[in-house]
Amino acid sequence: MGKLKFQISVSLDGFVAGPNPSEEDPLGEGGEQLHEWVLALAAWRKPHGREGGEVNASTPIFEKATANLGATIMGRGMFGGGPGPWGEDPWQGWWGDEPPFHHPVFVLTHHEREPLELEGGTSFTFVTGGIESALEQAKAAAGDKDVAIGGGAEAIQQYLAASLVDEMLLNVVPILLGSGTRLFEGLDPDLGFEQVEAIEAPGVAHLMYRRA
Amino acid sequence: MGKLKFQISVSLDGFVAGPNPSEEDPLGEGGEQLHEWVLALAAWRKPHGREGGEVNASTPIFEKATANLGATIMGRGMFGGGPGPWGEDPWQGWWGDEPPFHHPVFVLTHHEREPLELEGGTSFTFVTGGIESALEQAKAAAGDKDVAIGGGAEAIQQYLAASLVDEMLLNVVPILLGSGTRLFEGLDPDLGFEQVEAIEAPGVAHLMYRRA
Repeated sequence: MGKLKFQISVSLDGFVAGPNPSEEDPLGEGGEQLHEWVLALAAWRKPHGREGGEVNASTPIFEKATANLGATIMGRGMFGGGPGPWGEDPWQGWWGDEPPFHHPVFVLTHHEREPLELEGGTSFTFVTGGIESALEQAKAAAGDKDVAIGGGAEAIQQYLAASLVDEMLLNVVPILLGSGTRLFEGLDPDLGFEQVEAIEAPGVAHLMYRRA
Repeated sequence: MGKLKFQISVSLDGFVAGPNPSEEDPLGEGGEQLHEWVLALAAWRKPHGREGGEVNASTPIFEKATANLGATIMGRGMFGGGPGPWGEDPWQGWWGDEPPFHHPVFVLTHHEREPLELEGGTSFTFVTGGIESALEQAKAAAGDKDVAIGGGAEAIQQYLAASLVDEMLLNVVPILLGSGTRLFEGLDPDLGFEQVEAIEAPGVAHLMYRRA
């Protein structure tokens, strides 16, 4: 049985997005700094069709987090803001013709829509039945592999609050955002996690936890 | 010239104390779990007059954080709640006859009081002129050595907000507190820090930052 896991970049003051997010700037003011460490990695650039990049202490962490994934769950905003409800000529999200997932993706939404099959093994299935329904479908699709929560923060928070997350990787970036979206907001202290590892890498600290 | 630094234990959700702190329970509900890692260390137990304890990956971090200190600044609450204003027979705080500092301590308060000289080289000087006055006096007392902000959160937050902190060590403990006192609250994103190191230890991740 696979695990449900997520990874997310978080500022020193606990924000996963800065203030005033918009469709052009979904990470809010200053939020793009959260992802500089990963955009610099060759291991990220290659599957996203970009050349070059670094190999450093983040590389094995990133590779481990993205290995053995059989399905991804994401919120509607991460699939792509765009016009909604879907309309007659629904767009295909942010991800282009060949999204980097290469496995089934389940999108949490309030609006029904037919599944979308794209190139390279990625499909988008639109789930209106809530987070547990999406997880059930994702686990069935993933088989023995793991299921990732791709984001955004709201989707992750819902799975955390329901105590369904098995493993999480926090990439702590030494910036302050001052305000914005916090990852951990009003969670039950009884949600037990234990530390698995803490790894130093250039400009980021990788903290891995699993459900206790 | 010494540095101004602090270390503090913080929950995964960013709290340095749990909800409903009181005089009997200054760390709030669940907050005592934040300090289990340090209370277990022989390096902490010895200067606090306790026997036994562990030597582990936290030991050199703790020793480095407490080495080369020439003065400490703390808030009035950390000196000791107790009756205030001081009254005719003012008490000597939480720290007993021989406090573990062994150097001058400057207490931020609104109530004037004569300095207190205790055993083992610790003195308490009560500063009513604000955080910059306390820092100036502490630096003068410390000479070439560093000045620590001992706590509590409010004192640390004031020095952070004034951009006076040179170095900080966050000890991230894998618990959730759900609510309470956050270390980082409404800070200016331009306050630049850079990561110095990230160290894994039993039940805690030590993240060290310095002013960029």
